Order: sequence, then C-alpha cells, then structure tokens
Amino acid sequence: MKDLKQYINSIKEPDQLIAKKVERRIDGLTKPVGALGKMEEMVIRLAGMQGREELDLSQKAIVIMCADNGVYDEGVSECPQEVTATVTYNFTRGITGVNRLAEYVHAQLHIVDIGVKADYNHPQIHNRKIAYGTRNMTDGPAMTYEQALEAVWVGIEETQKLIAKGVQVFGTGEMGIGNTTTSAAVIALLTGLSVETVVGRGAGAKAETLNRKERAILKAIAVNKPDASDPIDVLAKVGGLDIAGLVGVYLAAAKHQKAVVIDGFISVAAALIAYRIAPLTRDYMFASHLSQEIGMRHALTEMGLEAHFSLDMRLGEGSGCPLMFQLMDMAYFTLSTMGTFEEAGVDKSKYMNIWKQVEGD
Amino acid sequence: MKDLKQYINSIKEPDQLIAKKVERRIDGLTKPVGALGKMEEMVIRLAGMQGREELDLSQKAIVIMCADNGVYDEGVSECPQEVTATVTYNFTRGITGVNRLAEYVHAQLHIVDIGVKADYNHPQIHNRKIAYGTRNMTDGPAMTYEQALEAVWVGIEETQKLIAKGVQVFGTGEMGIGNTTTSAAVIALLTGLSVETVVGRGAGAKAETLNRKERAILKAIAVNKPDASDPIDVLAKVGGLDIAGLVGVYLAAAKHQKAVVIDGFISVAAALIAYRIAPLTRDYMFASHLSQEIGMRHALTEMGLEAHFSLDMRLGEGSGCPLMFQLMDMAYFTLSTMGTFEEAGVDKSKYMNIWKQVEGD
Repeated sequence: MKDLKQYINSIKEPDQLIAKKVERRIDGLTKPVGALGKMEEMVIRLAGMQGREELDLSQKAIVIMCADNGVYDEGVSECPQEVTATVTYNFTRGITGVNRLAEYVHAQLHIVDIGVKADYNHPQIHNRKIAYGTRNMTDGPAMTYEQALEAVWVGIEETQKLIAKGVQVFGTGEMGIGNTTTSAAVIALLTGLSVETVVGRGAGAKAETLNRKERAILKAIAVNKPDASDPIDVLAKVGGLDIAGLVGVYLAAAKHQKAVVIDGFISVAAALIAYRIAPLTRDYMFASHLSQEIGMRHALTEMGLEAHFSLDMRLGEGSGCPLMFQLMDMAYFTLSTMGTFEEAGVDKSKYMNIWKQVEGD
Repeated sequence: MKDLKQYINSIKEPDQLIAKKVERRIDGLTKPVGALGKMEEMVIRLAGMQGREELDLSQKAIVIMCADNGVYDEGVSECPQEVTATVTYNFTRGITGVNRLAEYVHAQLHIVDIGVKADYNHPQIHNRKIAYGTRNMTDGPAMTYEQALEAVWVGIEETQKLIAKGVQVFGTGEMGIGNTTTSAAVIALLTGLSVETVVGRGAGAKAETLNRKERAILKAIAVNKPDASDPIDVLAKVGGLDIAGLVGVYLAAAKHQKAVVIDGFISVAAALIAYRIAPLTRDYMFASHLSQEIGMRHALTEMGLEAHFSLDMRLGEGSGCPLMFQLMDMAYFTLSTMGTFEEAGVDKSKYMNIWKQVEGD
C-alpha cells in the first residue's frame, strides 16, 4: 500500500506572501476595505493556493464518487437501491441537476464508479470499483481498513489525473443511496455531537425512516466501536466508498495546491475526515452552500469554514459546486477590473478611517 | 400630484396558475421534489410574475438612486460628503464595484441624480434632482411630504422608462453618504425595533461614529415624531431622496409585474416602505444577500423574505443585484434543461414517498 502518511506530510500551506500582496492590491480598489466581503476573501485565498496574482480559473471539474451502501438494508432511504446505478449512468447522459449546473459554468464532470452495485462499460464512467457496495454497518464494519485506504487512494489518483490535464478548481460530488446515513455517522463521531443532532431527512426521509436512520447509526456505532481518534477507522466502519473516494479528492487537491469546493452533507463528511487526517487540507477548501441537513453547519464550524449560499438545497451530486465556481469567476472578474482610488479621484487621505478600518474598533 | 393611491391599487398579484403549472413541471424533473430549494422557488415565482412558462430574462437593469443626506452634518459617516458626487460620476466610468459585477452578468445601470449636492451634465446621469440633498433630520423633517411623494414618482417614472425599453428584471442600487443612518431610522420605526438593534457600521463606522448615528436617529425621531403608520411620513421626516426613489422602483416593478431584487440595507429600507404602502409589492421582490448591517435580517423577516447569499458584503451601490441576476439565469437554465423522470428511467411509482414528500412529516 502506498504511504498515505508521507503523502499527507508533503501538503504545504498556501503562499501567504502572494495572498498578502493580492489583499493589498484589493485594498487599493475604490471601495471601503473589505466591503465585498467573502468575494475578496475568495480571490485572496485562491491567489495563495495558486501561488500567483493572476488566477487561472479556466478548467474546473467535479469529481463524482458513486457507490452503494450496505446500510440500505436497514430501510434508511425511501429510494430503491438501484437509483444509485441509474443516476450514475444518467450523469453520462447530461440530464441530471449537476449536469445542467456544470454545463452552465463550463465545468466538467468526472464520474467514478468506486462501488456501485452494477457494472458499466461506458467511457465516461471510470471503473475504480472496490466492491459492489459496502457491507451493512449494523452487522460489522462497512469495509475493511485496507478497503477504506484503497478507496482514498482512488480519489487521490483520479484527482491527480485531472490535475495532469490542467484542472485548477475541483468540486466534490457523490451518488449513493443511503449515504446521508453514513455521513451522519461519520460527522457524529468526529464532532462528538449526538446522533439525533446530525441525522436529517436526506433527499426526503419520512419520520419513520428518520427513526430507522438514527437506530441504524446507533447500532453501527455500538457494534463496531469506531475509534473517533482514527478518522480512517471511522470511515471504514461506518462510512462509505463514496465518502472515502472524496477524502482522496480533498487530499490530492491540497497536495497539489488546488482549490476544492465542498458541496453538501456527504461532501462535508468527507472534508471533515480529510481535515482530521491533514488539517492543512482545510486551507484549500471552500464551502459552497449550507444544505438542509442539520449536521452540515456543525461540520463546517468544526473546520472554521462558512458557506456562501443559503439555498435550502438537498440534491447532492455535487450540485452546489457550480454555484461556487460561478461566484469565483465573478469575484475574480470584478476585483481584477475595478478602478483604484487614484483612478476614482477619491482622496484616500481625507478619510483614512473608513478605508483602513476593518478589524479593530 | 399624480394619484399614488390609484397606482398602488392597480397592483396585481402574480399569476398563480402559471406558477403552479411550472411547479408541476419542475416536480417531474429527475430529482427529489424541492431538492433544488430556492432555485426552484425562484423560477416558479418568476413564471408567476411574467405570466408565462418560458421566462424572459434577457434584459436586466439596476436603478441607482443617488442623493445626499442632511444628517451628514451630525458626523454619522467617516467619508467626506463629496464622495456621493464622486462615486455617482464614477458609475459612468465603469470602474465601481457594481459596474464590474453588472458587466459580468450583462446588466445595465440606470443612474439617477435624485438629490446629489452637485450638478452633472452627463448623458448617463439622469437629472431628476429634487433638492441638493435633504435637510438635517435632527433639526426638522428631512424633506416635505410633497417632496417625498415627488421622489417616489421619480422612481416610478424612471422604472417605467426602462420597462418601455424591455427591461424584465430590476435591481435596486444607491449612493448617498449618510444613508445607512436614514435607513436605520426608517427600519426602526417601521419594525418597532429599537434604534440600537438596527444601527450598524455602514461602510465602516468607528465606535464613536456609531454613537453619533444612534444619537442622530433618536433626536430626529424625537424632533419630528414620525407617524409609523404612515410610511410616507416616516420617509419624509427621517428617510432620504435615494430611499424614496427606490420605493418608486419597487412600486413600478410590482405594478408592471417585473421582478425586483433587493440589495442591502438602504435597499431593504425602501422595500419595507413599499411593502407597507402596498403589501403586494413583496410578491415581486427577491432578497439577494444578507448584508453585514444587523437590521437587514429583521427587515427581511418582516416581509417574509429570505436572502440567497451570505457574503458579508457592505458596499451598497446595488452590488448584490448582479449576483442574484446570475443565480436566476443559472436556475432557469438548469430547470428548463434537466431530464424528466421518464427520460431518467426512474420509475416514480416505486418510491412515491420521496418524490412526493416535502411538506408534511
């Protein structure tokens, strides 16, 4: 097995000098300091990641990890399990929500079968299958420790392939019936929050299904006794192959200093694992929207990240990523074409207070 | 004086039948019902406003009302007053924040001098000046009741001109040093909230300036005793010409069944006045972002509206509107090109629960 520890240890933080330089340039634009809020922060952070003042946002890709979950047998979803396979195929047909959103912003989708309970022979579905779905975590670990690590490496390798092709900004997507249950288990264990706090309706669970989700998670935790201090143990015992693959996406993005956008609840569960394995991964993450799942806010807070959109979305698939891609483009366009104080004919010295306040008083 | 009451009484609600029809069509798309959250709501509402299933989002304009405020003399801003005049002119030069954001989404700016303390002779600055700024509201009413009404009509007329040219979606912008003070006064009076609750830092007030803002508002209220049940009385006594003009934009948009986007704190103060005068105007409003001003959330809640972005912006100028325009385009593109259940090969009857839940349990 490749050495994950070595890979992780080679992750560097973004270039703070470049970031500071861009911040100073933005502070010279004709507006009160910081008045464009998170749009400014975004451009400054991206410059630090890319290590240059002129950003390259030309190629963006959403990696969609598709896998089935054994916990489905506990009745945790209103959907038939084969929806995982159907929707995975539909990503190639351009008709799903994330397809259309990605098309609007000219982002590509990279579809990975990391554990779907079906076989494909399609050029756009990358076959990296580790198993035909995980095992039912209420009976024992969802997967072995080795399988979890293998799945993380799949995520790393697929992301590196895209980086080699020039992709600069990543999004994280997933398809896997039952994966809000596994994600809630992961988030509860890693944040120490109660299972009831983090379990939500997923794509649309009814009250009785919600109860089954909670019971399944509590049983899985009781049966497997995951070691919360070992994120890979948590991932293997109560996570999923889709989540594991996405952990790899976050690790590879950080390692290669590329921005990576968190979508929703499953995506943030993976982000939290990556963060716990390698805290510097956080410096490359952007939170797109706050999904309707209750646990999402807690997971973001845990990492010190804030969402940019508040749209009550609960689709998954990576559908929140194109929104963030668009916002990055818009922010960069705006902040690289606005006039400076000098051009604006505003004498900064006359009212230094406003253009220089921000922190402080 | 034209009859405002008659104008207001002719405002109709959006077409609920068309809206329902579009909602049903969206419910047939390959995703759980409502899973795209506010993006769905947006497209459904726009269809109701436009009275047709196929939206026309081709022409968008931000009306920017520019005016000075007499309350400036109370030291409520860190900026010299002439910044109002300078930035108003700079809107014609394409270098401000809202210029660049609007350009990104191909929206036009419509700049109105409704009360700047300077004269222009520029084809892009529409001279509808009512006064060279308002009077200091701590000494007496900022303007007369007649001036307030006149300014509202300016907003109506300028908006109608743009509608005649084919504009379908409006944004509301403003420039006026001191206008977070007037807006806070308006919001406090109309919501019944305390002045301390709604006064914020504006573009960047220091602690002492914040105190001066509070004191100025309290004094203006004590001196003028505005009748909170008469929004025009509030507007005249403690509002501003910029706010008044924007009230007209909201009224005209609703009257002509056009969508209108709220930007920040000043813009929401005007929206609240319009809503109090004519509650149906709310049905044509969209809240873009939640600005950093504390009172903004209260004003939106009062109208039952929710913001879509959370970006810590505090620039004003209408800068939040292009973000919302972009989101509308993206939502409409996505929801008019996604596949249906039939196309997706998903048998809806097998898991009716999920595709049909939403409200309820």
